[in-house]
Amino acid sequence: MKMSLDKLYEVIDKKKDEFVTRLSRAVSIPSVSADVTLRPKVVEMADFVVSEFTKLGAKMEKRDIGYHQMDGQDVPLPPIVLGQYGNDPSKKTVLIYNHFDVQPASLEDGWSTDPFTLTVDNKGRMFGRGATDDKGPLIGWISAIEAHKELGIDFPVNLLMCFEGMEEYGSEGLEDLIRAEAEKYFAKADCVCISDTYWLGTKKPVLTYGLRGVCYFNITVEGPSADLHSGVFGGTVHEPMTDLVAIMSTLVKPNGEILIPGIMDQVAELTPTEDSIYDGIDYTMEDLKEAVGADISIYPDPKRTLQHRWRYPTLSLHGIEGAFSGSGAKTVIPAKVIGKFSIRTVPNMESETVERLVKEHVTKVFNSLNSKNKLAFNNMHSGSWWISSPDHWHYDVGKKATERVYGITPDFVREGGSIPVTVTFEQSLKKNVLLLPMGRGDDGAHSINEKLDLDNFLKGIKLFCTYVHELASVSP
Amino acid sequence: MKMSLDKLYEVIDKKKDEFVTRLSRAVSIPSVSADVTLRPKVVEMADFVVSEFTKLGAKMEKRDIGYHQMDGQDVPLPPIVLGQYGNDPSKKTVLIYNHFDVQPASLEDGWSTDPFTLTVDNKGRMFGRGATDDKGPLIGWISAIEAHKELGIDFPVNLLMCFEGMEEYGSEGLEDLIRAEAEKYFAKADCVCISDTYWLGTKKPVLTYGLRGVCYFNITVEGPSADLHSGVFGGTVHEPMTDLVAIMSTLVKPNGEILIPGIMDQVAELTPTEDSIYDGIDYTMEDLKEAVGADISIYPDPKRTLQHRWRYPTLSLHGIEGAFSGSGAKTVIPAKVIGKFSIRTVPNMESETVERLVKEHVTKVFNSLNSKNKLAFNNMHSGSWWISSPDHWHYDVGKKATERVYGITPDFVREGGSIPVTVTFEQSLKKNVLLLPMGRGDDGAHSINEKLDLDNFLKGIKLFCTYVHELASVSP
Repeated sequence: MKMSLDKLYEVIDKKKDEFVTRLSRAVSIPSVSADVTLRPKVVEMADFVVSEFTKLGAKMEKRDIGYHQMDGQDVPLPPIVLGQYGNDPSKKTVLIYNHFDVQPASLEDGWSTDPFTLTVDNKGRMFGRGATDDKGPLIGWISAIEAHKELGIDFPVNLLMCFEGMEEYGSEGLEDLIRAEAEKYFAKADCVCISDTYWLGTKKPVLTYGLRGVCYFNITVEGPSADLHSGVFGGTVHEPMTDLVAIMSTLVKPNGEILIPGIMDQVAELTPTEDSIYDGIDYTMEDLKEAVGADISIYPDPKRTLQHRWRYPTLSLHGIEGAFSGSGAKTVIPAKVIGKFSIRTVPNMESETVERLVKEHVTKVFNSLNSKNKLAFNNMHSGSWWISSPDHWHYDVGKKATERVYGITPDFVREGGSIPVTVTFEQSLKKNVLLLPMGRGDDGAHSINEKLDLDNFLKGIKLFCTYVHELASVSP
Repeated sequence: MKMSLDKLYEVIDKKKDEFVTRLSRAVSIPSVSADVTLRPKVVEMADFVVSEFTKLGAKMEKRDIGYHQMDGQDVPLPPIVLGQYGNDPSKKTVLIYNHFDVQPASLEDGWSTDPFTLTVDNKGRMFGRGATDDKGPLIGWISAIEAHKELGIDFPVNLLMCFEGMEEYGSEGLEDLIRAEAEKYFAKADCVCISDTYWLGTKKPVLTYGLRGVCYFNITVEGPSADLHSGVFGGTVHEPMTDLVAIMSTLVKPNGEILIPGIMDQVAELTPTEDSIYDGIDYTMEDLKEAVGADISIYPDPKRTLQHRWRYPTLSLHGIEGAFSGSGAKTVIPAKVIGKFSIRTVPNMESETVERLVKEHVTKVFNSLNSKNKLAFNNMHSGSWWISSPDHWHYDVGKKATERVYGITPDFVREGGSIPVTVTFEQSLKKNVLLLPMGRGDDGAHSINEKLDLDNFLKGIKLFCTYVHELASVSP
């Protein structure tokens, strides 16, 4: 195996430009799932993925998963791409999952370069929406297969693939498909590998064994039939913005404390054993400061910071739809405003309970305002938290592969973000799921100037190659 | 005079289509002063005004008033248009003021028709941005001159004109010009007439003798160097949105009560005499309900409603720049958010004191949050309240003209909105200012589907004609 891997590493370095070009093509397709006008681009991205894998000999198919409601209209969901590469009963089979949609992005948001043009700077940072989340890892798998083919090295495992185009908008339709195919298309999978997480910092690789869930809510307050002039009507009618801001201010304190009654009661207690895991993790307050670009930490030490990122729930206020959001000064009373916020959930919170508690709280607060405006409460999407065990053989495979490529033992970490599909795969297939990251902690997934370091991209491809070879040789 | 007026009324009705076409051309120029990209359109609108008046024989000129800072760049201000029509020392001279810029508008905001295409429905409502605020009245004056010319009737007064293109963005540069020209260009003015207010309701004309002022503020809270992923950083860093919403929730209660200490202390006491003026005004709760399209009044009776519209200060939250404002679900922690709100001011509030009190309050609240984010406070613009006397001879002229055209004695009212230039004219020229409205209370200035009724447009032109004839015949 050692010889093959060294050759694979060589060819990966040699084919660097080709691999970057492929990523560049993927980034150039603005497959923003949250923007209904860009839905055709998500479909185009699905076709791109199918085409690239098909060229390498994989059997790919697009699964139509119907329609969903968006901005008041019926919109076709992008297809889910399924695939199979190799079907040798003597080999292990790993199911890989990635997503080919991306977060919204535009120059106006403050990007330094066009978000849909992959731009490599002199530090080897490749900037572009989706570079790290999650087109880099997806192109990484294509490149890993290509490297094997180039050398004529047998791919040591069978791959099953499941790629979706709605991850950034609640993964609509995916859960149903996974449950339906668990004992059919995915039946032969021995384990599942997902590359949609990141290193904790910028230097040391990690394996991820836990994720937070998310419940995304919106609150609509509606009053007048159209926007009003604040000079004419200000102070004589109930203003939706005033009501909404009053409600939103009762959700979370500036120190991060969630104010909704009952939410914290559901959180699993921190045991001394669990607490001690955090002592060994390579993370400093400087890492946090560097990643966010400012000294704005709530907690003074890495331990509590990581605990609040991974094992405690948090609530973020994202914005308000319908209010004046431009530059300049507009003296408007917005007629209908929609406040958006989400709660990251952790063991042992249940989405249904969270929704009920939030709805009860919001309704109670709104009623206490004695406003004549109308309130509507909506749970836009929910996904459960997930937690696995670092002691599983599959994690040992990931650990060995990482050690081989990076020459260092990875930290076992959790993530504050949410990948609901992880839970679905684990529950439906009853197989272990490994989260094997490619990018660094400062990649800025979901932010402006999202990037993937070229070094992480190439080492990531090597890591995928090494992972499949380690997987082939292990006896669970 | 009676004969001439009847003939003028006839010709105005006859030339209806021409006048509407002229208004339509004005509306088609999107002269949005708050949008830096549309600044050339404001200039185009200035040229249009100059051209139309010049054709009728007026002497027009454009005054360059320099640059201002907008969105971080130096932007040329649109010119102020000055004009003179007639210069007969035996006639009275009235200075008319209007503005040719408009509020922002787009179909996305919910307009039923393109805001920059004047669209007349079967009820004679002419929809379009600026139809009533303030292009309708401006085109009204042009049409009033044209009606005289058509009939060969001598225009009974000299007109001085002052038209600006920055009214909806704080009238930058105007005050300086008025003060500078008070004893020069405007020296011969005997009085000032402004048509930039509206009837209280939809049926009875009014004359306006009071206005509220406005102080427009923004609060910037800034933390991370770029937007962050709420899954990764939520709960571990101070989030600007949480801080901002906490501050904004301490400004005003949902029942309209201003919470900033000291603000209400500056408000003149309501005397029994003043209180009794409100008893006779033709206004019902049904009028308010109809105008806002919902039953969302704070006060149960017209009297208190009007007092809170006209003689008490109010605070409106307009929106937040920099937060997520689109549809759908984005799990972002916005890096920099700018909350916008304004206070409508009344006798005897002083803008400087208001600014100081608001800044003190905002700073104190922010400090109490113990956030590591950064706060910036900015007073975007301020304009003073204004109050005149309904007993002045100039108001009597307005009253007679209104009675002649509408066959009914107008209500003497105040307005909740702000026209800072009113104060400037009165103080600089030391002449009486009459606010002579053209449009109705439900015209929706600043809202979607802004309109002007054709009947008000035509009667408004007749009103302007009658006003100048009444003015010519009065002996103050």
